[in-house]
Amino acid sequence: MKASRALAFARQHRSRFVAELKQFMRFPSVSNQPQHARDVRDCAKWLAKHLRQIGMEQVRIIPTKRHPIVYASWQHASGRPTILIYGHYDVQPPEPSDEWRTPPFEPSIRQNILYGRGASDDKGQLFAHVKSIESYLKTQRALPLNVKCIFEGEEELGGSPNLESFVRRNRPALHADAAVISDTRMLGTGHPALGYSQRGNIRFELELRGPEQDLHSGNFGGVVHNPLQALCEMIAGMHDSEGRIMIRGFYDRVREWSDEERGYMASTGPKDADILRDARVSKDWGETGYTLYERITVRPALTVNGISGGYQGSGVKTIIPARAIAKISIRLAPDQNPATIDRLFREHIAQVSPPTVRVEIRTLSGSRPVMVNRNHPALHAASLAFEKGFGAKPVFLRSGGSVPAASVFQKHLGIPPVLMGFALPDDRAHAPNEKFHLSNFFRGIETSIWYMAIAAKMSPGKSEAPQGRSTQQKQGQI
Amino acid sequence: MKASRALAFARQHRSRFVAELKQFMRFPSVSNQPQHARDVRDCAKWLAKHLRQIGMEQVRIIPTKRHPIVYASWQHASGRPTILIYGHYDVQPPEPSDEWRTPPFEPSIRQNILYGRGASDDKGQLFAHVKSIESYLKTQRALPLNVKCIFEGEEELGGSPNLESFVRRNRPALHADAAVISDTRMLGTGHPALGYSQRGNIRFELELRGPEQDLHSGNFGGVVHNPLQALCEMIAGMHDSEGRIMIRGFYDRVREWSDEERGYMASTGPKDADILRDARVSKDWGETGYTLYERITVRPALTVNGISGGYQGSGVKTIIPARAIAKISIRLAPDQNPATIDRLFREHIAQVSPPTVRVEIRTLSGSRPVMVNRNHPALHAASLAFEKGFGAKPVFLRSGGSVPAASVFQKHLGIPPVLMGFALPDDRAHAPNEKFHLSNFFRGIETSIWYMAIAAKMSPGKSEAPQGRSTQQKQGQI
Repeated sequence: MKASRALAFARQHRSRFVAELKQFMRFPSVSNQPQHARDVRDCAKWLAKHLRQIGMEQVRIIPTKRHPIVYASWQHASGRPTILIYGHYDVQPPEPSDEWRTPPFEPSIRQNILYGRGASDDKGQLFAHVKSIESYLKTQRALPLNVKCIFEGEEELGGSPNLESFVRRNRPALHADAAVISDTRMLGTGHPALGYSQRGNIRFELELRGPEQDLHSGNFGGVVHNPLQALCEMIAGMHDSEGRIMIRGFYDRVREWSDEERGYMASTGPKDADILRDARVSKDWGETGYTLYERITVRPALTVNGISGGYQGSGVKTIIPARAIAKISIRLAPDQNPATIDRLFREHIAQVSPPTVRVEIRTLSGSRPVMVNRNHPALHAASLAFEKGFGAKPVFLRSGGSVPAASVFQKHLGIPPVLMGFALPDDRAHAPNEKFHLSNFFRGIETSIWYMAIAAKMSPGKSEAPQGRSTQQKQGQI
Repeated sequence: MKASRALAFARQHRSRFVAELKQFMRFPSVSNQPQHARDVRDCAKWLAKHLRQIGMEQVRIIPTKRHPIVYASWQHASGRPTILIYGHYDVQPPEPSDEWRTPPFEPSIRQNILYGRGASDDKGQLFAHVKSIESYLKTQRALPLNVKCIFEGEEELGGSPNLESFVRRNRPALHADAAVISDTRMLGTGHPALGYSQRGNIRFELELRGPEQDLHSGNFGGVVHNPLQALCEMIAGMHDSEGRIMIRGFYDRVREWSDEERGYMASTGPKDADILRDARVSKDWGETGYTLYERITVRPALTVNGISGGYQGSGVKTIIPARAIAKISIRLAPDQNPATIDRLFREHIAQVSPPTVRVEIRTLSGSRPVMVNRNHPALHAASLAFEKGFGAKPVFLRSGGSVPAASVFQKHLGIPPVLMGFALPDDRAHAPNEKFHLSNFFRGIETSIWYMAIAAKMSPGKSEAPQGRSTQQKQGQI
C-alpha cells in the first residue's frame, strides 16, 4: 500500500482536521479535578464516535476505576506487523487560569500556532495519528498494517493509575510489535527526535499537622511548632547546597554513564543554552558535574510542585496554621525503581519528622523509567518516517518527563515504545498558553502515514520482547 | 454618681444586650478582604447609630484610607478625668470556613457560650463598654467621668494602619487620662487579668519568582531553581534547631529580665501546662531556657502565617511553579523596634537570597511593643473594678499578642493603656468556632460600670505622660 494517496488526502483536508482538533480540545477533560469527570467522559464519547466515523473497528469505551479508555482497532492486514498507538485525551488543569491570553478551552489560532489546553499534550499529537488512519481508510479502505489504539483519560492523574491493570488483563488481545507514543518533544523546530529513554516518576503528598486548629500567632508564637515551618525545614533538608537529593540510599541505583554514551548525548542532545532558553530562565541550578541535558534525563530530580498551608488570602492573618501540605514529585533516573524510592522517601521522612507534628505521606502514583535499544527496527522505521515527514533525520533523545504508558507496554507486552514526539520543547505543556504549531501537526500526520507504510515492512521476530509473539493479528476480546 | 442603678439596669437587660450583640456580629466586617468592604462600612453605620441611640454625643463615622473609625464622646463630667475607650468592630476572615460548627456570621448560643466570628475579638468585648455606657445614661442621663470612644475597623488588617495618623492629627481633641482597651484575655475562667506588657508586631510578605511561568517538572526538574524550594530553604534558615531566630542583630535589643521580674511572672502568669492546654497541643517547641509564658511575652517570635505556591488542587500537577509567597509575622519583645527589625529582616533576606530567584519583600504593617507601669492609678482603678465585676483580684499579665492601639495611645497621647480583657485564652480568636462566654460578657459590662465609677475619683496629674494634659475635657473637633 502506498503512502502517497493518504498523504494527498491529508494535505487536502488540513483545515477540516484543524477544526476537528479544536472541537476535541473544547472538552475540558481535566482528569484530576472531580468537577470535570463528566467532561472527561464526554470527551471519550466524542473520540470514540470520531474513530467509528473514520472507519476504525471494535471501538469501545472501556471503564476503569476512574476515567475510561477509548479502544479501537483495525486488524485486516494479515501477515503484517501490528502497532499499538497510544495517546491520552485528558489534560492538565488550566490553573493559573488568569495567565492565559485566550481561554484554555476555547482553542484559538494566532500566526499558525494553535493555543489551548491539550494542544500539544496530548490531544494534538494523538489526533495526528487519528488523521493519518483516516487518510488511509478514506482513500484505500485499508491500513498498511494492523493497528490497535489505546487512548486513555488518566495520564495527567500522574502515573496512569489504571492503565497497567488494563494492559495486564488484556495482554493477549493487545499483542503488538511496537507501541507508538506521541507525547514527547522534538529537539527544536525542524529537528525531530525519537525518545529512547525516559525518567520514571513517583509523586507524594506530604501532610503535617500541628495544633488541632489555627492558633493566634501572638498568643502562641514561640511555643508551638508551626507545621508550615516544619514542612519548610523538611523540604529544605531534601537537597544539599549542590542540588543533590539528601535521601539515604537514593543514588544507589543511579548509573554513571560511559564516556561514549555521554559523548553521544552531548552530540545529539540540547545544549545547556537551549534548555535554559526553553525554560526561559537565565541561570541554571542543580547538580554540578553534569550537563543540563544529563541532569534532566539521566539524573533524578525532586520537585516541590505545590505547598499550601495557613492563610493565603489578601492581607494578613496572624495565625500558626494547623496544617500544611506539600505535593512532591521525584523523577527517577534509569534503573531507579519507584517502589524502592517510595520506601526510601518514607524512611527519610520518618527520620526527619520532629516529635511536635504529625506527618502523613500519601504516595499518589509512580512509573518506572524506560530505556529502549536505539537499534530496534521499530525505531529505525520511525527514523525513516521522520525523515519523510519532517524532511530531517531525527536524533535519538532522552526525555526528562515520563509517559507512564511506555513503561507499562515495555513491561507487560514486551514491546518497545516508539516515542515519536511532534511537540516543541517550549510548547508550554502543563503551563498557561499551551500551544501546538500547526506545521508540526501536519508534519506529524504525514510522519504517521509514512510510519505505517514503512513499519508494514518490518520483519517479524526482531523485537526484544521476552514473550513469544507473532506478527499475525490476534483477535482477542478487549 | 453611683454604680448601683447602672448595674441593676445592666442585669435587667441582659437578654436584649445579647440580642444586640448578635446583630452586631452578623455583619461580616472582615477588614482584610476587599469583598467585605461594604460590610465593614455597614457595620460602622450600625454601631454609630447604636451609639447615638444610647445617648452618646458627637457621634462620627470618620473615613480613613480604608475603613472608617467610629467616634463618640460624652464630655459633661466637668472636673472629672477623661477616659478613651477603644475597641475594633472589624474581624478576622472566617477561613477555613468548613471547620465552623455553626456559620461564622450567624451567631449562635450553646450552653451560655456565644459562638461566631468577632464574639470575643473584639465585638463582644467592645460591646461590654457600650452597654455599660448605656446603663449609666439610661438610668442617670450622665456618666461618672468623661468618655471618648474610638472604635476602629482596621485592627485585623494588622497594625491598625490608619489609627496612628488619626490620633496624631487629633491629638488635642483626644486628650485623656487613660485608654481602656478590652481586646485581651484573662488568665482563665474566674481569673481576670490586666495587661501591662504587649509584644510588638511586624508583618511581611515575601515573594520569590523563578521561571516566567510554571514549568513541566519532568522536562526541567533538576536544572531550574524552584522558587518554592528556595522559599522553604529561606524559611528553614530563619530559626536554628533551638528555636532562636537567625537574623543578624535580631536579639540586640531583647532584654534579659531580672530574677525579680521573672519571679513575678512565674507567680502570676500561666504555667507551661496551661499554655499547652489552651493551645491544645501536647508538646511545646521553641527557645530553651525560658518558660512558655516568657517565650510568648518577653521573647520574640517569627511565624510563617501562610505559604502559597504551585498547584494546590486535588491530585497532582507536576510543575516547577513560577513563584511562591510566604506571609510572615514577627512578634517583637519589649524594646525591639519595628523599623529596626524591618531593616534587619531585609538585610537578612538580601544576604540569603540565591541568585537564581528574584525576591521581593513587602512590609505590611508594624506596631511597637507596649510596657505600662503596674502602679499607675488607672491600672489600680481597673484592678478594683475587676474585683467588683468578677469577684476576683486580677493578676497583672503580659500578653503575646498586640493591640496596636495601645502603643499608639501611649506614644501620641502619653497615656497608659488599661488592657482590661474579658476573653478567655481558649476563646479561639482568629480561629474557627470563636466564642465568648456570656458570663464574661455580663461581668465585663459590670466591670466597665465599676471602672467608670472608680476612675472618676482618680486624682489628676498622676499619669505618666510627657505632654501637659488636664483633667478638663477638651471639646476639640474630631
